[in-house]
Amino acid sequence: MSRFLSEKYKGLTPYTPGEQPKERKYIKLNTNESPFPPSKKAVEYAARAAESAELYSDPEAKRLVAKLSELYDVSPECVICVNGSDEVLNFAFMAFCDRDNGAIFPNITYGFYSVFASLNGVPYTEIPLDDQFNINVEDYVGKNKTIFIANPNAPTGIALSLDEIERIVKSNPDNVVVIDEAYVDFGAESAVWLTKKYDNLLVTQTFSKSRSMAGARLGFGIGSPALIADLNMIRYSTNPYNVNSMTMAAGLGVLEDEEYTRENCKRIMENREYAAGELKSLGFSLTDSKANFLFAKHEKIGGGELYSKLRERGILVRHWQKPIISDYNRITVGSLGQMQALIAAVKDILEEKK
Amino acid sequence: MSRFLSEKYKGLTPYTPGEQPKERKYIKLNTNESPFPPSKKAVEYAARAAESAELYSDPEAKRLVAKLSELYDVSPECVICVNGSDEVLNFAFMAFCDRDNGAIFPNITYGFYSVFASLNGVPYTEIPLDDQFNINVEDYVGKNKTIFIANPNAPTGIALSLDEIERIVKSNPDNVVVIDEAYVDFGAESAVWLTKKYDNLLVTQTFSKSRSMAGARLGFGIGSPALIADLNMIRYSTNPYNVNSMTMAAGLGVLEDEEYTRENCKRIMENREYAAGELKSLGFSLTDSKANFLFAKHEKIGGGELYSKLRERGILVRHWQKPIISDYNRITVGSLGQMQALIAAVKDILEEKK
Repeated sequence: MSRFLSEKYKGLTPYTPGEQPKERKYIKLNTNESPFPPSKKAVEYAARAAESAELYSDPEAKRLVAKLSELYDVSPECVICVNGSDEVLNFAFMAFCDRDNGAIFPNITYGFYSVFASLNGVPYTEIPLDDQFNINVEDYVGKNKTIFIANPNAPTGIALSLDEIERIVKSNPDNVVVIDEAYVDFGAESAVWLTKKYDNLLVTQTFSKSRSMAGARLGFGIGSPALIADLNMIRYSTNPYNVNSMTMAAGLGVLEDEEYTRENCKRIMENREYAAGELKSLGFSLTDSKANFLFAKHEKIGGGELYSKLRERGILVRHWQKPIISDYNRITVGSLGQMQALIAAVKDILEEKK
Repeated sequence: MSRFLSEKYKGLTPYTPGEQPKERKYIKLNTNESPFPPSKKAVEYAARAAESAELYSDPEAKRLVAKLSELYDVSPECVICVNGSDEVLNFAFMAFCDRDNGAIFPNITYGFYSVFASLNGVPYTEIPLDDQFNINVEDYVGKNKTIFIANPNAPTGIALSLDEIERIVKSNPDNVVVIDEAYVDFGAESAVWLTKKYDNLLVTQTFSKSRSMAGARLGFGIGSPALIADLNMIRYSTNPYNVNSMTMAAGLGVLEDEEYTRENCKRIMENREYAAGELKSLGFSLTDSKANFLFAKHEKIGGGELYSKLRERGILVRHWQKPIISDYNRITVGSLGQMQALIAAVKDILEEKK
């Protein structure tokens, strides 16, 4: 920390992304990336866009916005494109919260919400999940706070139903409800269509998971035209050219290749059920994940120990030294081969413990 | 504006980027892009990176940081990579200014500084340039404010000497001085080496201009390790994966091709002198630009009128309806052919006025 840093950030604890070790080739099941390469169309379009990267990207992202609005059946002024969905989440904390208008979100959820809140000087309340890691919908009804819910939730993978989401949105008409659907394509229901009915609902999604583009950095938000106008005002006040032209082109490419995305999601869901079944038969407890990861613990081995032993065997998963969830590991669902390698390693580790 | 927008942003006026019209093919001399395509190595590396875009980009941008630190002869912890230099400028307003620690910058300069200040609730003072559009160095000596200076300045193109910069930095030891060197490669002196001597100096640069990568969005900051740590803390609290993997790869490619960049800068400087000479002989007054643009006015034709008449002829330049500079246009220096087309159009327009 320098002696020049503003008082307001003293004590700020930044987000810690999953490790990206370079010293060894791991089976990476720690950051919920897709095991499948980006769509060939995405790669081809990006490569072509690189050739004219001397020109600024379109700050309105018109073609991409048009394509998203067509696919999600909303009008173009209801869509904002961003440099990864973290950007639009931060914009939402900036625009719709402040010192006098705090935020609420679950105590176990995407770890960035509390960082965004702290960064922006927003008071926040973390609402405990129940002892099965479920969000208790009643806790969010009529709260008069800006609400952030990941659906499915992370790292539990548990999804709320659309009815439950609607109940929360409807009962907080004077506050924005943000539904972060980073993992929605793996079996949960999207709330996008509810944005037509409720002007206080913002849905955010990402190309990082189901669309195999984590490295390209592309996310989007869908909401009422007025909400999106606010977010665009923030965008034009921070970084109007926030999405680069290669990523925009890649985004267009993968959206023209929805069959590929659907097929990949289907395979991930199959691999998830396979791995969940195997882990259960090995004695693991798992949440009912609708995401591209599993959240699992075993009575015979601590979460930290399993993490370390998998790491020794070349498999990276995500573990948090945090009360309530320290017994668990979050395991990204990868290819079938990766899942088989995981199961073999787990068997081996459990065998050792006997 | 929605009814949910935080009070703190009511009245915020976002930045207005130069127009990017799609309806017609223009000779684009309005956003200071390079007329030259990106380095072939940049294109090739970006295309290759797109193929594995399913994996997150390196949040530490290690290879790119290493290459920049080698080229600029500073240690890696003195470098931060960002999604276009606007991002690091905003981070600097966030980190080094606040309600009690205001900013100062010239009244005629990059229009984003006042937007960043407003966005972050930072009081700011705009110091008038002299009547020749020069920055009066004395105005910045011993000010006890965070100082932002574009060098060369925009849209005037006039550069301060390194001695002048040092005077400002040295006389404000308890405040950060940000030197925005977006245009430094076209004939001004970089203050990078001064960052080794002064812990309160942050130098920012971009790949958008001299390195033909405006569309790729890549910028960087160089400063003392403590300053850079502060900026990285902000980065990790907003968007740790801020630079995508294709852009990172392209950045590495162009840095391995410095000869190409140098050659392009040389050509831009030659074209600038050619166009400046022609415009002068047509009766224009010009500032002494060290950037990849000219700032020009003519007694016989208003700035707005010249802008419109050039536009009718398929040439876009940048004009501001703003006191003091409304007689002027900022004209990007492009290829020789583009400059010849500009001169021909200007001659034609002046002929008509006779």
